[in-house]
Amino acid sequence: MTNKYDVLFEPVQIGPVTAKNRFYQVPHCTGMGYLRPRAEAAVRAMKAEGGWGVVSSQETEIHPTSDLSPCPENRLWDDRDIPALRLMSDAIHEKDSLAAIQLAHNGYHAYNNASRAPLLAPSDISLHNLNPKQARGMDKEDIRNLRKWHRDAARRAREAGFDIVYVYAGHCMTLVQHFLLPRLNDRTDEYGGSLENRARLMRELLEETKEEIGDDCAVAMRFAVDEMMGVDGMQAAEEGRAIVEMLAELPDLWDVNVSDWSNDSATSRFAPNEGYQTPYIEFVKQVTTKPVVAVGRLTSPDLMVSMVNRGIVDFIGAARPSIADPFIPNKIKEGRIEEIRECIGCNICVSADNLAVPIRCTQNPTMGEEWRRGWHPEKIDPKGEEEAALVIGAGPSGLECAMQLARRGYHVTLAEASSELGGRARLEAKLTGLNAWKRVVDHRVYDLQQRGNVEIFLESDLSADQVVELGIPNVFVATGSSWRSDGLGRHSRTKIPNSGKLRLIAPDDIMLGKLPTDGPVLIYDDEQIYLGGVLAEHLNENGIEVIFVTPATMVSPWTESTLEQGRIQKSLIDRGVTLRISHSLQSIDETGCTLGCVYSGKDQKVECSSILLVTERVRNCTLFNEVEKFQEAKPEQFKTLKLIGDAASPGLIVDAVFSGHMAARHFEADPDLEADEYFQREIINLEDGS
Amino acid sequence: MTNKYDVLFEPVQIGPVTAKNRFYQVPHCTGMGYLRPRAEAAVRAMKAEGGWGVVSSQETEIHPTSDLSPCPENRLWDDRDIPALRLMSDAIHEKDSLAAIQLAHNGYHAYNNASRAPLLAPSDISLHNLNPKQARGMDKEDIRNLRKWHRDAARRAREAGFDIVYVYAGHCMTLVQHFLLPRLNDRTDEYGGSLENRARLMRELLEETKEEIGDDCAVAMRFAVDEMMGVDGMQAAEEGRAIVEMLAELPDLWDVNVSDWSNDSATSRFAPNEGYQTPYIEFVKQVTTKPVVAVGRLTSPDLMVSMVNRGIVDFIGAARPSIADPFIPNKIKEGRIEEIRECIGCNICVSADNLAVPIRCTQNPTMGEEWRRGWHPEKIDPKGEEEAALVIGAGPSGLECAMQLARRGYHVTLAEASSELGGRARLEAKLTGLNAWKRVVDHRVYDLQQRGNVEIFLESDLSADQVVELGIPNVFVATGSSWRSDGLGRHSRTKIPNSGKLRLIAPDDIMLGKLPTDGPVLIYDDEQIYLGGVLAEHLNENGIEVIFVTPATMVSPWTESTLEQGRIQKSLIDRGVTLRISHSLQSIDETGCTLGCVYSGKDQKVECSSILLVTERVRNCTLFNEVEKFQEAKPEQFKTLKLIGDAASPGLIVDAVFSGHMAARHFEADPDLEADEYFQREIINLEDGS
Repeated sequence: MTNKYDVLFEPVQIGPVTAKNRFYQVPHCTGMGYLRPRAEAAVRAMKAEGGWGVVSSQETEIHPTSDLSPCPENRLWDDRDIPALRLMSDAIHEKDSLAAIQLAHNGYHAYNNASRAPLLAPSDISLHNLNPKQARGMDKEDIRNLRKWHRDAARRAREAGFDIVYVYAGHCMTLVQHFLLPRLNDRTDEYGGSLENRARLMRELLEETKEEIGDDCAVAMRFAVDEMMGVDGMQAAEEGRAIVEMLAELPDLWDVNVSDWSNDSATSRFAPNEGYQTPYIEFVKQVTTKPVVAVGRLTSPDLMVSMVNRGIVDFIGAARPSIADPFIPNKIKEGRIEEIRECIGCNICVSADNLAVPIRCTQNPTMGEEWRRGWHPEKIDPKGEEEAALVIGAGPSGLECAMQLARRGYHVTLAEASSELGGRARLEAKLTGLNAWKRVVDHRVYDLQQRGNVEIFLESDLSADQVVELGIPNVFVATGSSWRSDGLGRHSRTKIPNSGKLRLIAPDDIMLGKLPTDGPVLIYDDEQIYLGGVLAEHLNENGIEVIFVTPATMVSPWTESTLEQGRIQKSLIDRGVTLRISHSLQSIDETGCTLGCVYSGKDQKVECSSILLVTERVRNCTLFNEVEKFQEAKPEQFKTLKLIGDAASPGLIVDAVFSGHMAARHFEADPDLEADEYFQREIINLEDGS
Repeated sequence: MTNKYDVLFEPVQIGPVTAKNRFYQVPHCTGMGYLRPRAEAAVRAMKAEGGWGVVSSQETEIHPTSDLSPCPENRLWDDRDIPALRLMSDAIHEKDSLAAIQLAHNGYHAYNNASRAPLLAPSDISLHNLNPKQARGMDKEDIRNLRKWHRDAARRAREAGFDIVYVYAGHCMTLVQHFLLPRLNDRTDEYGGSLENRARLMRELLEETKEEIGDDCAVAMRFAVDEMMGVDGMQAAEEGRAIVEMLAELPDLWDVNVSDWSNDSATSRFAPNEGYQTPYIEFVKQVTTKPVVAVGRLTSPDLMVSMVNRGIVDFIGAARPSIADPFIPNKIKEGRIEEIRECIGCNICVSADNLAVPIRCTQNPTMGEEWRRGWHPEKIDPKGEEEAALVIGAGPSGLECAMQLARRGYHVTLAEASSELGGRARLEAKLTGLNAWKRVVDHRVYDLQQRGNVEIFLESDLSADQVVELGIPNVFVATGSSWRSDGLGRHSRTKIPNSGKLRLIAPDDIMLGKLPTDGPVLIYDDEQIYLGGVLAEHLNENGIEVIFVTPATMVSPWTESTLEQGRIQKSLIDRGVTLRISHSLQSIDETGCTLGCVYSGKDQKVECSSILLVTERVRNCTLFNEVEKFQEAKPEQFKTLKLIGDAASPGLIVDAVFSGHMAARHFEADPDLEADEYFQREIINLEDGS
């Protein structure tokens, strides 16, 4: 019996190696790298187990002149780095997948703050980051050295067990790409000027990598065909295409995308459609006979099949979708398409790398916990002695907790006070740009609905007495949090004087559709994460005038880590939102607010018709506290009483899901397990001879 | 024969242990910690070798709920962290000093991004950083747990060999301090409300630490007596004093300072005088019989003696001065006071910790390189076969190179084109706030002047022919860099259209005293480090109207890492400088400039009488290139021809000094040594049982 998805499971040859199917986890960061090699190996092993035919490393520094400390990428400076990488390739091979490694020299994108090595670039230039240094234009010896380092790294990569070795020219992050770009390369020698000259280094590295290891390993070229800067950068229709044409048959595989990282990893907020890179990369297969892989937050099996059948790609590339669900290939193969945990495009994974800490994922709470906690996204221990559990609150934390408890085999009662499931994830998904976030709800609700051991009660705003009356001995309380209305926030640690005369709007009002009919609305964002900016867009989208005030120096500063900040601030400005940056809210009176400059204290009066405070949240613990009091009086009533999610500790949706997941995992486990897992870590070797 | 400094070398008892003298290196960060334990041990060992009676660790995380990843502090989560710390205590003991360790639970100042453990605080609160989470108010069990963790950590600290164990309440960075502060603690139980209640945790930790290890180890209390926030925070004259009075005899030592970190580690730009903390801490010795240590960038031995004799302190505390010169105690003891390398108060050391990379120091280029490169601040290998060297350029790099070459015994010829020594360090030190930076020059010039093997030539703007004629076979070229005048910088990668009609001022003009006589001067800071802000202050100080434009979202964003940014922007606003933040320079015409919003592109015209570009620098390599050409023709002419400092790679003064130092170290060494040193690093143990 043939299956329309069979084409996705055809083997594909890549130079001297063959991938067992068309699922290709392209290189992506994990925040683990050389500092957490066992954790990194376990992440990649899970992808392999989930069915990806090719599983790639993250970018791998080839030399101390490409030192990204403190961000822990992979590293292959010398032979001492081979054992850590071999853990990864062995783990991938054990699950019958090909292991790929992305060699990188980061040029002027590097920091070299730990190595203090010289910074290199095609031409003299300030660094690509805020480090107070300039890179020097490479001389001929520098270029010869670089070629040797790359060759040495390729040889070590083979020795470390990798099947596919990348030359990397993407994200404006590597020397090979820097040489290609006229704005970064004003050389007058054979490495500058004409496109052929600017592509010389790319050609040399490809040739030399093939020469060094090409008999055993495939050589892949990762290349950003378009910088999405129009005429100010490389364009797919111009030099992007010309380069692929020029070097068409040289690599064994083309892995093509757009640059920079914020374009390649665009969030669903700004690039809502999957396959958003297709218009840029679809020419590639027309000019090369070599297999092509591309990405674009692809999670729909039908689109995948179509992309292969239409001759756009040979491989379905994925970074973020493979993080949200490492088992996409197997689920498709087994016809379990509805079970795919689709990426919501929130870039929490990206933020972890930017913060130099281990990767996490809103949709997949086991991501990054494979080694540390031994978590598996598709497996969980069956239940123990207990039979039943009550989960109160069906937001992200309650839904995840209920789902995992149900998977373990408990009889789960899920009580939700409102008339719909999903809590804040459902509500936030109604706001401008966040539609894809409802997948957090959809995936879990679908799963719960498939099971016979789950009872869901809507409009069940339980009292403590009712919780007691229900008689279920194990209770998980996921009652969420509410936004403060007194102004306490990150910057302001005392309540803001308020005449009480101005209309006060809560973020939840907007999410529930209770929009003001007149403006201007002054949004005071002292949370500084993402919601303030979203609400500003949403109100504007609904025709309401907005004044946006924040003590931060920019709109939504935290979103720098999700690569969205520039787009958000541009969007607000383009929409005509009035911005008052670096100002705190001093007081609220009848007709408006008084703001103070956070630097000088100088104040100014702003008129508005209402005020929307996005500051800090209060945990909704009343029910929990009342039940706890009851339990203190009658300890035998409850065996488990646990606060989870925002009610325990307000955070992002990723934190709420994680909290619900962990509570379900640890239920009936050794009580020391949770604590022990926090202590799990990788430690520096004090004995080695380095 | 008595010496006026003898008092500094008296032994002082601290509980059950005795320090051999009054020099006390208080806890400070290194950016090494648990990720670089051998490097950390080597830093501390050097302090001990330099004569400090007590040498302290940096703050030491006691539990996964206090996880500062990616910043590598010290760590004592469990027994597995003991061996790394024992390296440190052993290294300190080997040099006959006492080893102190600063235990810390960072409460809501922690991130817990790697551990994902709950975040703890006296009361519910947003984090003290931009992480998108809130900490939960601790319940009684949390407090009991914390006390147990602290007790366990104290026991492990003793086991790891430390003589002094800290309870830490400073920098607004630890739970003990958070409990003290009403704005962070609104508890209604016995840990909130009255001062006695808010200080309960502090008392408990002191008592329990003494109980656990007090027979063998001294228990030190590090306490910020004043937050420098006036009535909005703790004040030395109010609760600061009351707390010391209340717990006066409980610790074995009081280590007192001001909070937050930007106040404790104020830069010379904003706190020019040493001993700036004295007015806040001088009451302490009046209310306790226990020894007291305090800091304030103390480098003058006479002030140190005076502080002891006036009964202000028992110990001379130092963090930054001990980084700039680990040998201060020995130099005072041996009457070599002129040889002290005085801290310039630039906070480059602080920036390294903020960037989570190893510590470095402008004045002491060996800082952080003790283990990695085996460098010693007071020792350098004697010369090899060669006899003489020519150093061209007497800026920070040339001076350092010449000094170290002279120390090695070479006959050094130092040629400087201008009429004064010091290069950019001398020039920048003339600007408002940077006076202390001249110590970079003073220290090196003094040293060079003491030596018989150094010839200094001023106003010697050598040509390549002259360099050849001199006949010195080893040439180090430190000709520095010049500011670009075409607008190329961090943000703008194409030259800025310029009618050529508006007066253009170079940063060097201002430093050379060539100030414009009229305003407004538009400063375009696309370097975004520190100089743009300094020049704005300097011009304003000289009565010239300034418009400050930057593509960054704040003035001098890099100075966030040196804890100066808020002060700089406040200063400019208070001075009346006009700020155009988040704007780039689009073009320059006869009467002013056109600026564009970096987000929206929207442009605006600004009138000004002249423009000062602080963008990017050009390396001054002409002489080097000409000499190199000569050398290519006649290779036997020169044995060494090396470009160093800003001419090789424009950076900060710290980078220039480092470059000059390294060139002198590597001269006549194994040519592979330099490369080998870059590769030196500490690597994760793949074998351990964790």
